[in-house]
Amino acid sequence: MKHNFYAGPAVLDRTVMDEAANAVQSFQDMGLSILEISHRSKQFVAVMEEAEALIRELLHVTDDYAVLFLTGGASSQFFMAPMNVLSSDQTAGYVDTGTWSAKAIKEAKLFGKVNVLASSKEDNYKHIPEVTVPSGLRYLHLTSNNTIFGTQFHKWPETDAPLVVDMSSDIFSRDIGDINQYGIIYAGAQKNLGPAGTTLVIVRKDLLGQVDRELPTMLDYRTHIAKGSSFNTPPVFPIYVCMLSLRWLKENGGIKVIETRNESKAKVLYDEIDRNSLFQGMAREQDRSLMNVNFSVTDPNHEESFLKYAAEHDAVGLKGHRSVGGLRASIYNALKPESVHHLVQLMKDFEAQNA
Amino acid sequence: MKHNFYAGPAVLDRTVMDEAANAVQSFQDMGLSILEISHRSKQFVAVMEEAEALIRELLHVTDDYAVLFLTGGASSQFFMAPMNVLSSDQTAGYVDTGTWSAKAIKEAKLFGKVNVLASSKEDNYKHIPEVTVPSGLRYLHLTSNNTIFGTQFHKWPETDAPLVVDMSSDIFSRDIGDINQYGIIYAGAQKNLGPAGTTLVIVRKDLLGQVDRELPTMLDYRTHIAKGSSFNTPPVFPIYVCMLSLRWLKENGGIKVIETRNESKAKVLYDEIDRNSLFQGMAREQDRSLMNVNFSVTDPNHEESFLKYAAEHDAVGLKGHRSVGGLRASIYNALKPESVHHLVQLMKDFEAQNA
Repeated sequence: MKHNFYAGPAVLDRTVMDEAANAVQSFQDMGLSILEISHRSKQFVAVMEEAEALIRELLHVTDDYAVLFLTGGASSQFFMAPMNVLSSDQTAGYVDTGTWSAKAIKEAKLFGKVNVLASSKEDNYKHIPEVTVPSGLRYLHLTSNNTIFGTQFHKWPETDAPLVVDMSSDIFSRDIGDINQYGIIYAGAQKNLGPAGTTLVIVRKDLLGQVDRELPTMLDYRTHIAKGSSFNTPPVFPIYVCMLSLRWLKENGGIKVIETRNESKAKVLYDEIDRNSLFQGMAREQDRSLMNVNFSVTDPNHEESFLKYAAEHDAVGLKGHRSVGGLRASIYNALKPESVHHLVQLMKDFEAQNA
Repeated sequence: MKHNFYAGPAVLDRTVMDEAANAVQSFQDMGLSILEISHRSKQFVAVMEEAEALIRELLHVTDDYAVLFLTGGASSQFFMAPMNVLSSDQTAGYVDTGTWSAKAIKEAKLFGKVNVLASSKEDNYKHIPEVTVPSGLRYLHLTSNNTIFGTQFHKWPETDAPLVVDMSSDIFSRDIGDINQYGIIYAGAQKNLGPAGTTLVIVRKDLLGQVDRELPTMLDYRTHIAKGSSFNTPPVFPIYVCMLSLRWLKENGGIKVIETRNESKAKVLYDEIDRNSLFQGMAREQDRSLMNVNFSVTDPNHEESFLKYAAEHDAVGLKGHRSVGGLRASIYNALKPESVHHLVQLMKDFEAQNA
């Protein structure tokens, strides 16, 4: 098999793939594929309940919060979050740390007042800006990790407002601290949680039902809370695979263990980038992402040849996002340390051949 | 394996399951699971293109229409359709033929004027009402097949307005006639198209961009048209399985062949319901659905015992929807004629033992 450095959809553990493939053939003792069972069968209801329980356990989510499996990706939460909690006369704070923040800001402006407190756009989003947060905000919105530019908040800005955080690309990779600081956490599944096709939303219930607008039924978080994410047919298989992936995470020690492993993986790779004369990092050092390692070649001629060399040696998904170019190694939870070591060795060998 | 009569998610052909399971292990020559590949990889782009091409071929969809793979189910189209094409001063016509129509009507009222032209609610939705459609409607909305009550439009009402049709439970089961009569066709995948997790929308492009409101980016059909359903990460695996299922349909003769097979399957089952002294049909005869066969027992004591008897003989999913009770056999495209014959034999045997 390959060493998969894609930014998302991304690598999941092989045991998850194996069990998922088996379930497509035949699920539990039902004599049916998981693709053809009712979402209201007791077997699938048990999957949903286990997935929710694992999320609550891993992230210490209390009963004040609902845990929802929706669809439409983080891109849908860009509008659903403000639509559900921001009235037209209220102000939300946003920090612009890249493409995804900018998209979230655009959607929020349809619903209320948006105060963009800081932006690193002029630096092409290579750092996380300092932020002084005013009081009186309905919420403070952050993109915790920027997959495109390889930056990550390592500490939230000080604020008295509830945090609304897009954690699509680093949820379950590290301790998120006290749940009570959050109003809403949302994440597309297709990085650390599971395959593409479902979106995790964790929302503090007492924030809901206060906005000055009527919501379509499907866009009201309360609809999905009332029906346990099964108001309509949920994406059965993607949720099942998320559950398997959460189970894998728990069985391998949970958040603290994976966080240490992720720090170690990132250190090994950044150390090589800093050491190797043919490569250089992109993001400001203290803001470097532990999930998406963006780097570039010092000699532009080497970009295509290194990608080719890596692909020939089973390392795939290393091309940078089309909007920034360069190289990017996404090293999510399920990427094994061996894959990072493999990449580092390829960089060393490439240097020996080309320096 | 079982005979799967679930109403949805529902049976898919075994060859589809087998190929899907293989792809979860290893997709094509990529050395990766389909669950971990980029939605922008050339291999997945080819899947999307093939799925769209198959839909265009099977339903004779012209270039005037976009074919989209979205998420959120038909329940999201209940509001997205009017949000995208119905201005607040325009009137849409709706025919109320059951739970799903009623939900669609509720959402449409948030966006424009809604004229409910006919309803069979007082008859507990056991028939399709006659409709005289006034002129001047922005569109006429219909639910083509009612999964809960087992009724189906066998002919659309006469109208000069474009049809907006929820075909969730009978798309690809029969010839839908001239595409030009439709404004929008939408369908949750999880009956005749594929597994739960994606929603098919076919929309006439010239209807768009005319409403008197601003739309969140993700809720504007034009966003998804411009980006080939990949503005954000689409539900990769559900779309892949839809493609496999469409390929299966084409390889087995396409719509005309499956329509004949579906008519034959339904006739066999309804004939037995009408003949067997222990069972009776629910819907008015001329409005009976060819997809969801609703029936009940003449002696209420027999309901549980027949369900138990059927389950013991590998026939599952026969319990009626919780809102109407009774029995329901969903006999979608992928349900083999042998499964209908098996059920009929069980009904005969049950009669012999209990009459």
